[in-house]
Amino acid sequence: MERIKPHTLSGFMELLPGEQALMDKITDTIRRVYGLYGFTALDTPLIESSDVLLAKGGGETEKQIYRFSKGDNDLALRFDLTVPLAKYVAMNYPKLTFPFRRYQIGKVYRGERPQRGRFREFYQADIDVIGDGSLDIMNEAEVPSIIYRVFTELGLRKFVIRVNNRKLLTGFYDMLGLSDKAGDIMRTVDKLEKIGPEKVRAILCDDFDIPGESAGKILDFMAIRGGNDHVLAELSGYTGKNATFDRGYEELKTVVTYLKDFGVPEDHFTVDLTIARGLDYYTGTVYETQMTDYPEVGSICSGGRYDDLAGYYTDRALPGVGISIGLTRLFFILSDRGLLSGELPTAPADVLILPMSERRSFAVETATALRKAGIRTQIYSEDRKFKAKMTYANRLGVPFIAILGDDEIDRRMVSLKDMRTGVQELLPIDRVVETVACAVAASGGIAPIKE
Amino acid sequence: MERIKPHTLSGFMELLPGEQALMDKITDTIRRVYGLYGFTALDTPLIESSDVLLAKGGGETEKQIYRFSKGDNDLALRFDLTVPLAKYVAMNYPKLTFPFRRYQIGKVYRGERPQRGRFREFYQADIDVIGDGSLDIMNEAEVPSIIYRVFTELGLRKFVIRVNNRKLLTGFYDMLGLSDKAGDIMRTVDKLEKIGPEKVRAILCDDFDIPGESAGKILDFMAIRGGNDHVLAELSGYTGKNATFDRGYEELKTVVTYLKDFGVPEDHFTVDLTIARGLDYYTGTVYETQMTDYPEVGSICSGGRYDDLAGYYTDRALPGVGISIGLTRLFFILSDRGLLSGELPTAPADVLILPMSERRSFAVETATALRKAGIRTQIYSEDRKFKAKMTYANRLGVPFIAILGDDEIDRRMVSLKDMRTGVQELLPIDRVVETVACAVAASGGIAPIKE
Repeated sequence: MERIKPHTLSGFMELLPGEQALMDKITDTIRRVYGLYGFTALDTPLIESSDVLLAKGGGETEKQIYRFSKGDNDLALRFDLTVPLAKYVAMNYPKLTFPFRRYQIGKVYRGERPQRGRFREFYQADIDVIGDGSLDIMNEAEVPSIIYRVFTELGLRKFVIRVNNRKLLTGFYDMLGLSDKAGDIMRTVDKLEKIGPEKVRAILCDDFDIPGESAGKILDFMAIRGGNDHVLAELSGYTGKNATFDRGYEELKTVVTYLKDFGVPEDHFTVDLTIARGLDYYTGTVYETQMTDYPEVGSICSGGRYDDLAGYYTDRALPGVGISIGLTRLFFILSDRGLLSGELPTAPADVLILPMSERRSFAVETATALRKAGIRTQIYSEDRKFKAKMTYANRLGVPFIAILGDDEIDRRMVSLKDMRTGVQELLPIDRVVETVACAVAASGGIAPIKE
Repeated sequence: MERIKPHTLSGFMELLPGEQALMDKITDTIRRVYGLYGFTALDTPLIESSDVLLAKGGGETEKQIYRFSKGDNDLALRFDLTVPLAKYVAMNYPKLTFPFRRYQIGKVYRGERPQRGRFREFYQADIDVIGDGSLDIMNEAEVPSIIYRVFTELGLRKFVIRVNNRKLLTGFYDMLGLSDKAGDIMRTVDKLEKIGPEKVRAILCDDFDIPGESAGKILDFMAIRGGNDHVLAELSGYTGKNATFDRGYEELKTVVTYLKDFGVPEDHFTVDLTIARGLDYYTGTVYETQMTDYPEVGSICSGGRYDDLAGYYTDRALPGVGISIGLTRLFFILSDRGLLSGELPTAPADVLILPMSERRSFAVETATALRKAGIRTQIYSEDRKFKAKMTYANRLGVPFIAILGDDEIDRRMVSLKDMRTGVQELLPIDRVVETVACAVAASGGIAPIKE
């Protein structure tokens, strides 16, 4: 037979079992926390009709889209979870209840240039709250508070959610008479941290023809830093001159207050006037999340408030607020930086039963009792030498093995060995269940990230 | 703005929130049970290189495959989870531990003719055990016992796992001197239930030129029915003439014995000599699963033993046994036949908090306490009339609402209303947590299927 060399496409993450167990633990934690906040799960197709998916225009990403035909259909793979959400909400509007809170964790596709840490197939984990005509600002604080809880439960410690408000920026540039250049300025200011204020000033003045005095005011504004109360106090000095700015200021103040109510400690969120999140889509509060020890990886979770989710499908006003975790990239970063916990059990079973006799009914009986108690159990049924069986147990990394020879079977007892301590005890089935259940419960609290 | 009519492609299942909650409950149950048996989770890309995916040749399904180019790459969407597993095992062989037990629940793609109840994107939920060179027969009984447990925990009652052995069939046709026609015969006999013995006889004789006497023997063989012990006893009459038949007979007898050990009651599995499962791939035990009240839907879960998982990638002998649930189709059938439970809570939250005051800190505090206890909680933060808030609660179907007016806030108490009984109580936060946790725990045991 002619053989094909098996390979996985570059830019597509495919994990080994132990890594996958860690990834699943992360995904499960995100799902559980999203669920705790009363979000409903959605699952939309990976393939959509191209006219639907590209209704808004793909913009920069259009070249990256996987687009193809099947029969007469012009199809495309989704490149984010927001456009499918817009489609879903516009299409099912009469059947949904608003505010509509949904989460979705799913793969999306972008044919990016292959590069280390860049993926063509990757998971996004999104939450959005969609209002019908209006949406209370409280949601703009609850959403980042959920992200705080997600990362905290994952075991991440050193991160900060940066919060800003687009109205504040729009109003500020309006005050300076620079509304028509707001987009260029925001994109330039976004580089502040990377290239420093002098280079930003040069770009503003030279490339975008902004007067030196205005550039100075922009840099002064962006230099407002410190505790959130301090930043808000400084900002209050700019109020009273522009209605949009004032609205942005009030919104930001409200969001900061609610964030405290929602239990986000002040060292985990900061008002940062430099972040803007792209151009047209966001209209109010915006977020980015930074791992403080790894600023070079950029934002690991971003989002914000928008006024018009689905204008290209419907004339209904559907404002919302949402945030997205780039899960595959986050996993890559955590793995690459050595931040995945080595303590979290990744074995596929809590107990491995090793039958040492041809009589296997008691092995099955033991397995059945363990599984009934919710304990993940494997029976090693291959006819191999004891040493091969132990190698299997060690490679799997199971915390317990249960040895069942003729002697044990005759006495209806199990030799249970704790693989971490090496201690072996002869126990009846119910005590085996108890012992393992106890150990499993104890390891349940281990977080997948150790920072 | 020019508007596009939002739509979802035909043949792609996209559920409303309540339906999705039921689907998720089914998926979660399958995942949990697969995990209990010590299977490791895999997640492989949806896109593979066409040469890899089609190495074996797509056969009948080749026309149905979604195949396209991106840049220089000839790509295809996976059409099952077995080929990606073969690729994965061949590619990662040195890093895996054998027997390799994996489960995968994921979407696959087949461009079938659109038809009610047929899907182009659908979930498969597979388990496979792959041996390195050999694999003990015990796995061939454990795998269907897992399926028994999955369906039972889902709430399905009236189903039967039909078990047969390909060696038994191969040996039988060999005895009749019909080895070269075995494929044609199996495909014909497969229709026995649908078209009856007389039509099967006609096809065998007229289309495949099988002597009438042999056709009679085939039909006599296929007519062996009844309790498993009875069928095995009848089969023993055929032994001693053909080595392959005898091996198949011994395997079948062993599998039947182990199935009892694994706790599968006899009314849920039956030896059925008519099932064969395609042609080349399966080499030993084969399974199909039928919903006894709905025979017209065909098998809802099929699989079997194979000797060569990945011959088109590697020269290693990788025998295995696997089984697959066609999850999307199963969900469609259950929904269509009215078998999904109406009792399972599908609301996105266990408690909906309705703030009736501008002072919302206590609402957030209540929500935080509930979420800390693992209770899914939503705060309704829109500024609407009480009636609109109640409509929202009713449409969501939440079991509890917590009303927080100024009076409650001043007393640090919550008016908790049980929406099913209508009873409303004024309680402190810790008692609210207790009451709801108790109700949630009580509804935890409800199965998604009610048959």
